[in-house]
Amino acid sequence: MLIDERLEDLRKKINSKVPAGISISEVEFEGPELVIYTDDTKKFAEQADLIKVLARELRKRIVVRPNILEDPEKAATKVRAVVPESAGITDMFFDPDTGEVLVEAEKPGVVIGKNGATLRDITKEIGWTAKVVRTPPIESKTVKDIRQYLRSVKDERKEFLRRIGKRIHRDVRSKDKWVRVTTLGCCREVGRAAFLLSTPESKILIDCGEKPGSSSEGFPYLGVPEISPLSSLDAVVLTHAHLDHCAMIPLLYKYGFDGPVYSTPATRDLSAMLQLDYIDVVNKDGGVVPYSSKEVQEYLKHSITLNYGSVTDIAPDVKLTYHNAGHILGSAISHFHVGDGLYNIAFTGDFNYDKTRLFGPATVQFPRLEAVFMESTYGGSHDIQPSKKDAETKLYDIVNTTINRGGKIVIPAFAVGRSQEVMLTLEEGIRLEKIPKVKVYLDGMIKEATAIHTTYPEYLNPDLRTQIFKEGMNPFLAECFEQVDSSNLRQNVIDGDPCIIITTSGMLSGGPVMEYLRALAPEEKNCLVFVGYQADGTLGRRIQKGWKEIPLGRRETIMMNCEIQTVDGFSGHSDRKQLMRYVKHLQPRPERIFTIHGDEKNTIDLASSIYKNYHIQTVSPMNLETYRLV
Amino acid sequence: MLIDERLEDLRKKINSKVPAGISISEVEFEGPELVIYTDDTKKFAEQADLIKVLARELRKRIVVRPNILEDPEKAATKVRAVVPESAGITDMFFDPDTGEVLVEAEKPGVVIGKNGATLRDITKEIGWTAKVVRTPPIESKTVKDIRQYLRSVKDERKEFLRRIGKRIHRDVRSKDKWVRVTTLGCCREVGRAAFLLSTPESKILIDCGEKPGSSSEGFPYLGVPEISPLSSLDAVVLTHAHLDHCAMIPLLYKYGFDGPVYSTPATRDLSAMLQLDYIDVVNKDGGVVPYSSKEVQEYLKHSITLNYGSVTDIAPDVKLTYHNAGHILGSAISHFHVGDGLYNIAFTGDFNYDKTRLFGPATVQFPRLEAVFMESTYGGSHDIQPSKKDAETKLYDIVNTTINRGGKIVIPAFAVGRSQEVMLTLEEGIRLEKIPKVKVYLDGMIKEATAIHTTYPEYLNPDLRTQIFKEGMNPFLAECFEQVDSSNLRQNVIDGDPCIIITTSGMLSGGPVMEYLRALAPEEKNCLVFVGYQADGTLGRRIQKGWKEIPLGRRETIMMNCEIQTVDGFSGHSDRKQLMRYVKHLQPRPERIFTIHGDEKNTIDLASSIYKNYHIQTVSPMNLETYRLV
Ligand SMILES: [Zn+2]
Ligand SMILES: [Zn+2]
Ligand SMILES: [Zn+2]
Ligand SMILES: [Zn+2]
Ligand SMILES: [Zn+2]
Repeated sequence: MLIDERLEDLRKKINSKVPAGISISEVEFEGPELVIYTDDTKKFAEQADLIKVLARELRKRIVVRPNILEDPEKAATKVRAVVPESAGITDMFFDPDTGEVLVEAEKPGVVIGKNGATLRDITKEIGWTAKVVRTPPIESKTVKDIRQYLRSVKDERKEFLRRIGKRIHRDVRSKDKWVRVTTLGCCREVGRAAFLLSTPESKILIDCGEKPGSSSEGFPYLGVPEISPLSSLDAVVLTHAHLDHCAMIPLLYKYGFDGPVYSTPATRDLSAMLQLDYIDVVNKDGGVVPYSSKEVQEYLKHSITLNYGSVTDIAPDVKLTYHNAGHILGSAISHFHVGDGLYNIAFTGDFNYDKTRLFGPATVQFPRLEAVFMESTYGGSHDIQPSKKDAETKLYDIVNTTINRGGKIVIPAFAVGRSQEVMLTLEEGIRLEKIPKVKVYLDGMIKEATAIHTTYPEYLNPDLRTQIFKEGMNPFLAECFEQVDSSNLRQNVIDGDPCIIITTSGMLSGGPVMEYLRALAPEEKNCLVFVGYQADGTLGRRIQKGWKEIPLGRRETIMMNCEIQTVDGFSGHSDRKQLMRYVKHLQPRPERIFTIHGDEKNTIDLASSIYKNYHIQTVSPMNLETYRLV
Repeated sequence: MLIDERLEDLRKKINSKVPAGISISEVEFEGPELVIYTDDTKKFAEQADLIKVLARELRKRIVVRPNILEDPEKAATKVRAVVPESAGITDMFFDPDTGEVLVEAEKPGVVIGKNGATLRDITKEIGWTAKVVRTPPIESKTVKDIRQYLRSVKDERKEFLRRIGKRIHRDVRSKDKWVRVTTLGCCREVGRAAFLLSTPESKILIDCGEKPGSSSEGFPYLGVPEISPLSSLDAVVLTHAHLDHCAMIPLLYKYGFDGPVYSTPATRDLSAMLQLDYIDVVNKDGGVVPYSSKEVQEYLKHSITLNYGSVTDIAPDVKLTYHNAGHILGSAISHFHVGDGLYNIAFTGDFNYDKTRLFGPATVQFPRLEAVFMESTYGGSHDIQPSKKDAETKLYDIVNTTINRGGKIVIPAFAVGRSQEVMLTLEEGIRLEKIPKVKVYLDGMIKEATAIHTTYPEYLNPDLRTQIFKEGMNPFLAECFEQVDSSNLRQNVIDGDPCIIITTSGMLSGGPVMEYLRALAPEEKNCLVFVGYQADGTLGRRIQKGWKEIPLGRRETIMMNCEIQTVDGFSGHSDRKQLMRYVKHLQPRPERIFTIHGDEKNTIDLASSIYKNYHIQTVSPMNLETYRLV
């Protein structure tokens, strides 16, 4: 059936289902959604279950949108007129993709009104569907910029979403039935994640990252015929925002890709932030970044965000559902349902099966599941991490010892993930008086990353979420934390009282941590604490190995006289025990598991242990292989 | 280096090596060869080792050709003038690809002359390098037609060969090093052989066949991105002429392939014959052939033939060497040497490790060998074939019994391979008086296929070769054999004395065998003898299973009252024991063996037995997978 015939068909079906008095003016595919345009959005809203019923019967994600959307600026003025001033509206985000206006307010209850009356009044007044969120306690410049940018390209995006909508809902033509996965990176190595899921009908790329610390092997194998031309890809599906998973996505647009990148909203914002930072860092290092901020904008323009649990058509024969991965903010296990019950496959991305201060444990239950591509960073049989409690106790001890002798503690950390976990640990330590009441300085992108965390509280675990929104209890706003964002301030910190400094980059490959190192490492009373994995070839790894003289540029040498400590256990990854436990708890039990995202030894070791213990067929694939799943 | 710079470089090197007095006018890549054009071909010929020395030092296949080639027709007249009439010249084949004239003569010695004097005189006279072959005892129309066609497109071919020559000798650009094989058919099934060997630089397709008896799965997976566009293929390498390996090669030209197909000369001629017959048979069945004789011509125009043992550059980083496979005339194990000592891989095609009446056993020794893709037709643990001797005894018994009771024996057989083996068996039986002196009628393409066998005696085993050229001893010309090529003659055979009829098709899927069946099957005194594998779903298989009434078209039914016999042991394939013995004897011992060209049970069974017995890593791949070899 042609796509227009199909839309006409859907329009008729919808018309026959909606009560008289609701008129449907247009039905369009926009991205993965079926959009119903009407003049009667309010009546739709009143029929609480109508949208659900339509979605179930038509097996589509349905959005109802008014025919005419008031101009955002005028609409904003009207919203402020309707809502009592005591609500404390701080911002409004008009999303033309969805016809929704997100009202940020200090008192969301006042915007909602009695039984939702105020919300309904807004819709009546301006046409946009109103949603409310509590004003994020820390404002993120990244989120603000991205929302503004997307508003500025809304016409292009509408066109793009309609094009993609038609592509997703095209007819399935092939009689063949098969599902294949081609490994384009991240096999028997950590880095440059990129997997191609293909069927006779569709091609989906999962992740597209860089390999840290490698110039010759920095890229996934994007030149092989399997994904040529890039315009033949139906979609890119991103698991999370770390650069080893997302760094090369903007490059795809440079090379001719013109389709959507799916991710959670938090992953989209964190990715763009880290990609822009990646451009800066590589440029400063004298390296060559293969793309510019222009391609990051292209990525944003083509991004489509999905929340956990929403089953979404992304190709004629592929449905994607995201599930919590527990690794970093917005990180998602990507579950693909292929064909009409043909096959189900999950890509874990990076995941943590332990509950942490930030997140709940990774999802283990799926409606159906035949194959799993599973990370193996700590897949070796000896890769047992200490418990979070032991790790925290060790960190408190180090802080106490160092502060007591008048020293400063420098903690290099990635901006996203580990920094926030360590912040929460230190804040509790100070609050419960397990460590002295010293300043905790945040340098680099940590503050901004933390702001994005508070913008998306729904991804945090419930305890933390509650805490954040309780007045005066938001741990990220505790008075111990202080942002450092200039050389002047940095010098003050260096010259000042004993304190703790959390700063990027996590593996000492550049960034503000270098200035702290130069000033503080030569003094014995200070302490450098590693809380994350230090890859081979990085300065961090060399210092861990015991190097005492660190060359800095051509002329300078830093004497590493300070104490050097490593605290394991803050990892965002499952350790070996958790990986095995995860497989054991998976429901349903998959037929095949592919161990990836780990060095050769670890992926093979984990594959063999899973087979021995659980009798599940396992493979530790190599890069550039293709596996037939069905 | 640009290709023209490289040629200039080679020209200088060659000039510095050849003695004064020999002038080099041009140096060109033509297909896999480096052609040296000169006015002094004779002087070159006199320096016996010069070409060998150049080949070794430049690591190229070298051909020396005169600048100006006399017009073939005029040259032929001159040859006849130079050579004494007693030589009995029957034909001359001028091959503009090589600048050679192949003189067919009944007495080759006379053409050669004392110490080669006459040959040298020919070259002196006409420029073409003269080679002599004994006139084939049976003339093949196919061979004649192909040679004539190639002569008619010689200018196009020259252009094609120069283009391919430049492509083969282009610079290797990629820094990556990997070797992959993608399975496009023939895995866990018999039929539609097609394997893609790829490196960062090159793409080689090995075989491109059809799946007999299947309409929905008849084609290899030619639509997948791995081999798109087909113009990106560097070469197609053909193992042998059976349709499950070569039927879809003409289709490649229809879909945009414009490169060379490598094969042995015998395979080229048999393939073209069988492809043209395939078009006929499918058309008669009311099926749709996806190509016409025009594409068979395209294939011939783009064919490049190689003999066993000749190491040939077919891509910048791939060398191909053919080795005897013992399966049918010209069948070859294809050995690929990739990169500079990077990896070696052999595709056995179909092979027989037993010596037969026709061929020597398949080659087991290779200079280097890391991986083998190996056929598994009889790979199941119970697939033990009787010895050839037992098979022959059984056939003789059947013939004796049937003839004695006044019956006729009908032997359905493939035109190529089994027919000739059975012919030789029957000829010897009659000659040694093990069976009565009856006529053996050949119907269908068997005669033509036999003629091609005698055109390429160098592929036959030495005993048979000697026999063929001994006056009056050529078993294929024995007086018992008589060709049937019209309905009239066929009726005479049916009405005549007790006799043996060998006829196509081998699985009773059409062809003249059907007429014999209709006339002879209802009579109890006759006997139908299967000597080859009958695939599921074919009429042959149904009769073997014991069906007594065979519907023929809509109205007719044949009563199968005759005796039905099956004689195993004439197979052109290794049986299970031989397959295992072959692996055991392989030198060097490969690291990995992939079992293909067998049904699911057999490929898995063979893979597991090889692993258990010889501790070689084995895989029974599925279609549409890619394996990374290095
Ligand atoms: Zn990660
Ligand atoms: Zn990762
Ligand atoms: Zn064969
Ligand atoms: Zn075959
Ligand atoms: Zn051509």
